[in-house]
Amino acid sequence: MSLFIPHVLITPGDIAGVGPEVALKAIASRDFNCKFTLVGPEWIWKQIAEKFSVSINSDFLYVPSLSYIHKQKINYGGVSESFGSIAMECLRQAAKVCIDENNTAIVTAPLTKAGIHSDGYNYQGHTDFLAEISNAKKHAMMLSTGDLKVILVTHHQSILSVPTSLSLGNITDKIELAHECGKKLDIKNPKIAVCALNPHAGENCAFGDEEKKIISPAIEFLRNKNINVTGPYPSDTLFYRALNGEFDFVIAMYHDQGLIPVKLIGFENGVNTTLGLPFVRTSPDHGSAYDIAGKGIANPASMISAIEMAIKLSSGYSSK
Amino acid sequence: MSLFIPHVLITPGDIAGVGPEVALKAIASRDFNCKFTLVGPEWIWKQIAEKFSVSINSDFLYVPSLSYIHKQKINYGGVSESFGSIAMECLRQAAKVCIDENNTAIVTAPLTKAGIHSDGYNYQGHTDFLAEISNAKKHAMMLSTGDLKVILVTHHQSILSVPTSLSLGNITDKIELAHECGKKLDIKNPKIAVCALNPHAGENCAFGDEEKKIISPAIEFLRNKNINVTGPYPSDTLFYRALNGEFDFVIAMYHDQGLIPVKLIGFENGVNTTLGLPFVRTSPDHGSAYDIAGKGIANPASMISAIEMAIKLSSGYSSK
Repeated sequence: MSLFIPHVLITPGDIAGVGPEVALKAIASRDFNCKFTLVGPEWIWKQIAEKFSVSINSDFLYVPSLSYIHKQKINYGGVSESFGSIAMECLRQAAKVCIDENNTAIVTAPLTKAGIHSDGYNYQGHTDFLAEISNAKKHAMMLSTGDLKVILVTHHQSILSVPTSLSLGNITDKIELAHECGKKLDIKNPKIAVCALNPHAGENCAFGDEEKKIISPAIEFLRNKNINVTGPYPSDTLFYRALNGEFDFVIAMYHDQGLIPVKLIGFENGVNTTLGLPFVRTSPDHGSAYDIAGKGIANPASMISAIEMAIKLSSGYSSK
Repeated sequence: MSLFIPHVLITPGDIAGVGPEVALKAIASRDFNCKFTLVGPEWIWKQIAEKFSVSINSDFLYVPSLSYIHKQKINYGGVSESFGSIAMECLRQAAKVCIDENNTAIVTAPLTKAGIHSDGYNYQGHTDFLAEISNAKKHAMMLSTGDLKVILVTHHQSILSVPTSLSLGNITDKIELAHECGKKLDIKNPKIAVCALNPHAGENCAFGDEEKKIISPAIEFLRNKNINVTGPYPSDTLFYRALNGEFDFVIAMYHDQGLIPVKLIGFENGVNTTLGLPFVRTSPDHGSAYDIAGKGIANPASMISAIEMAIKLSSGYSSK
């Protein structure tokens, strides 16, 4: 275990959404074993803290590229041009600090795609932006709730395109990232289960042969490298087994295969973690929720879980 | 509500598995509001009742086509030729009775595909056998646990083949069957939610257009016929919403989309119901479990739920 106290940078994401509200509520909710720094203009965090009656004891990280933005009243629930810049430039500055400083993690409050696109940023979201600026060779999205940790092989693409997108390379990448994550979480010989693509794992190629041609060879390849990975398992029963402690990680072949169980079990406390970056990055598994933004009723449970995961993983990174 | 007490026929399925054991345990577990009849040779049921120390108070239904099979000691956990015939001929006889008699349901104990195939029956299982002998024009598999009721549009086929298997016809068929089932369950104006095929419902055709081309038109078509159906919804959050009472039925586009949530929530008490037959048919949502057959440790929870669903639906059928 590390003797360092992790340093957690919180980026505001879309300040017109619920992100900064849940971040401040989460920080104030309990004594976390970390040092917090709020990224971005102080006036933003202070305005939000005042609105929701939360006190701030954290430091602030100055973002030079945002110095041109003057203090203004936040208009909750609406896409605003400079709010996209705030989200992305805070993220860029936080990533710089994380790359330079050991033992530092980012927890990102949610952003809004429309907001960042309106400001000319051509990214799908946090994950690909961070992967690009940190030159990550491979990266993966992990969704977790409690002890159920699911890593996706494919993300935002049509079901029709999923089977032809699977390859030995992208499956082994995700399994290796799961294995490394397990070590960072202090799990000895992490047990990794791989979902089949097809129902009943294809029932001996009766319906689909991706299990035989792609998924099984990927598993076999890494078992020979002493990674504790098994499958492919029929996905309809695998998540129950994982939830009951049989496996530490589940590798899902496509978005809904992995997200259905995570959101069903952990609708209020899901965490999104990017694996493969040179630093820890987690996020609550919800969006900006414009419909309730500014009302003070947003639930910080998912943000609290995201901070806890960042602290756990940071200990692992610093003790490498 | 019907004044009749429903008549529930229990078929033994594969007698080398746990089916008859859970059936007898379930019947003995409580006072159900129905009359039970055990289908098939008396010696089978009596041998099993004695082995597991359960008393029998039910009637028996004689199956003439099985008169050639002599009393023998049941060999638990092994595929046996005549056991396949017992499973299928009991089912055929039970279906005959159900077609002739109003207010009569079948609850089927699980069978083993290998068992029925070894006896020359060319069926995938109960559902297609019953659909064929009852000339059902359309039928569907519904999986349920508690109040979560999921109906599948496609079943045992590869993920690659799912998108091209969806059609206006097969989606509207399943929605109509859900609507009819809702009425039988005494649900007023049943709320039916339809899953999208693609993640985020395709995000305005950014990844996949089946939502726009096939699923939405099917929904629109039936909304114009006053069926209370909505969607397509992103499936990763829909099951949570349905579980929390927002919808009575969920229509899933493919096997694992529907089965992952049902098995995660209802691993021990899931029920499989065939919709579209001229009579009620339910089944526990588990297999013959050869690994624990004959040991007396099989859990009857799923069979109990299957009997309860049969009773509820039978009241609906008889009050048509």
